[in-house]
Amino acid sequence: MSEQYPVTEQVVASFANSKSDRYREVMQSLVRHLHAFAADVRLSQDEWDTAIDFLTRVGHITDDRRQEFILLSDVLGLSMLTVAINADTEGATESTVLGPFFVADAPEIELGGDLAQGAKGTPCYVSGVVRSADGTTLPGARIDAWEADEDGFYDVQYTGDRTAGRGWLRAGPQGEYRFWSVLPSPYPIPHDGPVGELLTAGQRGPMRPAHLHFKVAAPGYRPLVTHVFVKGDPYLGEDAVFGVRDGLIADFAAHDGGTAPDGTERAGRWAQLTFDLVLAPEEGK
Amino acid sequence: MSEQYPVTEQVVASFANSKSDRYREVMQSLVRHLHAFAADVRLSQDEWDTAIDFLTRVGHITDDRRQEFILLSDVLGLSMLTVAINADTEGATESTVLGPFFVADAPEIELGGDLAQGAKGTPCYVSGVVRSADGTTLPGARIDAWEADEDGFYDVQYTGDRTAGRGWLRAGPQGEYRFWSVLPSPYPIPHDGPVGELLTAGQRGPMRPAHLHFKVAAPGYRPLVTHVFVKGDPYLGEDAVFGVRDGLIADFAAHDGGTAPDGTERAGRWAQLTFDLVLAPEEGK
Ligand SMILES: [Fe+2]
Ligand SMILES: [Fe+2]
Repeated sequence: MSEQYPVTEQVVASFANSKSDRYREVMQSLVRHLHAFAADVRLSQDEWDTAIDFLTRVGHITDDRRQEFILLSDVLGLSMLTVAINADTEGATESTVLGPFFVADAPEIELGGDLAQGAKGTPCYVSGVVRSADGTTLPGARIDAWEADEDGFYDVQYTGDRTAGRGWLRAGPQGEYRFWSVLPSPYPIPHDGPVGELLTAGQRGPMRPAHLHFKVAAPGYRPLVTHVFVKGDPYLGEDAVFGVRDGLIADFAAHDGGTAPDGTERAGRWAQLTFDLVLAPEEGK
Repeated sequence: MSEQYPVTEQVVASFANSKSDRYREVMQSLVRHLHAFAADVRLSQDEWDTAIDFLTRVGHITDDRRQEFILLSDVLGLSMLTVAINADTEGATESTVLGPFFVADAPEIELGGDLAQGAKGTPCYVSGVVRSADGTTLPGARIDAWEADEDGFYDVQYTGDRTAGRGWLRAGPQGEYRFWSVLPSPYPIPHDGPVGELLTAGQRGPMRPAHLHFKVAAPGYRPLVTHVFVKGDPYLGEDAVFGVRDGLIADFAAHDGGTAPDGTERAGRWAQLTFDLVLAPEEGK
């Protein structure tokens, strides 16, 4: 147990009259745990200064294209913990972290279209069915997908406004979806800023195993935020943001030439992922 | 006890190989307490989103003149807790929070000089001795002092580069110090930003009781960061940043005309504070 200081109960009491019961509960718990942390480690004044400076720099590097606070939450496992707390319903695809690279207004592509839009990498045909755990297919479900290119960068990490390796589409009449993109590559999270310093001081690596992000929404169902990881990736056991779950590791089959499932003739190497996206009904349904 | 999730121990383990033992200790404790908080309140995804947005706005409102992260630490009592943990040595003046308005490169004034420099308010003569707990006087000690004006604003809260109600001086041959400034006024902490929203949601007030800030340094002694509060102030029991300590409340005597201690004739109202600044030896001395 940590030593108690009178200020802790003063601060807890100051939230007693909060506008909502939930706000009071959250803030009083936050204060108790934050103070217990500082008391347990006997936080020094220099360490407090360092923390203020660190957070200030996290704030100043954050802009429309870089979200260092999400990155910080990710490397501290808070993002993944929040996912775990708000756990999946039985039978649905497991969730994982959103990450800092989601973009709300990505372009729509047609069913079977090209999501790569020039992103560098081995072509990859991605397909499956959007359905509920009981097998009901979900025609018209919205599927957002995004990924890093072969060099390990998302489009938003490049200068300029090019969108590549990112888009959304609607599932077809039988809930089916399909698109072309590129084979995901492992990549380091941005580590040239304060979060990179945190990793360096902890002697932790910045790498994430290769993955393809999905965000799936259908009326009456809980939105699904997840990744599909590439089986055999060397970083599966040391994801910098703790996002790997066994049920999300899938085979990205390797092909060389031949006819793709959509009938196109392929000259060189290409990959193929087949993955069903299974949603849980909204609570109360 | 909060529910345990596997990710917590994964994150704790990721810091096992930290560059320093202290870094490992601090980060592992931070992770455990942060995760216990999220698990205890069962933090929702929407609340996580709100927290990321809140911190982002705290970062973006922070600049050279406004330090919203210090303000946040202050209203959560973390600043005062850190002061309490690194407790005063017996016999020394009690410490309190630095606050967000300290400026490192304030102008030097001479002993007995005018620190107000045009700051609005009732003139106030401040004097005392800088000494150690055993009575040793500390000639040449550096005394930084700063305060809000009668309207409740620090100089840095105004547009323009004027310095007022702020400066530093050196104690004289017997450790004595004296300067003119203005009678401190109660003021609201800046509450037009994210920290103001936090206070509003908690139905907490933004006011601080009137005080004069001091930062005192002498070779061989622990730096002292403190305030002197004005006895009788209506906000002493509800300081927005929890900084009040009984030993720091002092009489600011009211005068009307007459001769001041430095021999000047005063035409109107003025105030007077006499307060010794008592330092503790550095550890190991
Ligand atoms: Fe990613
Ligand atoms: Fe102040």
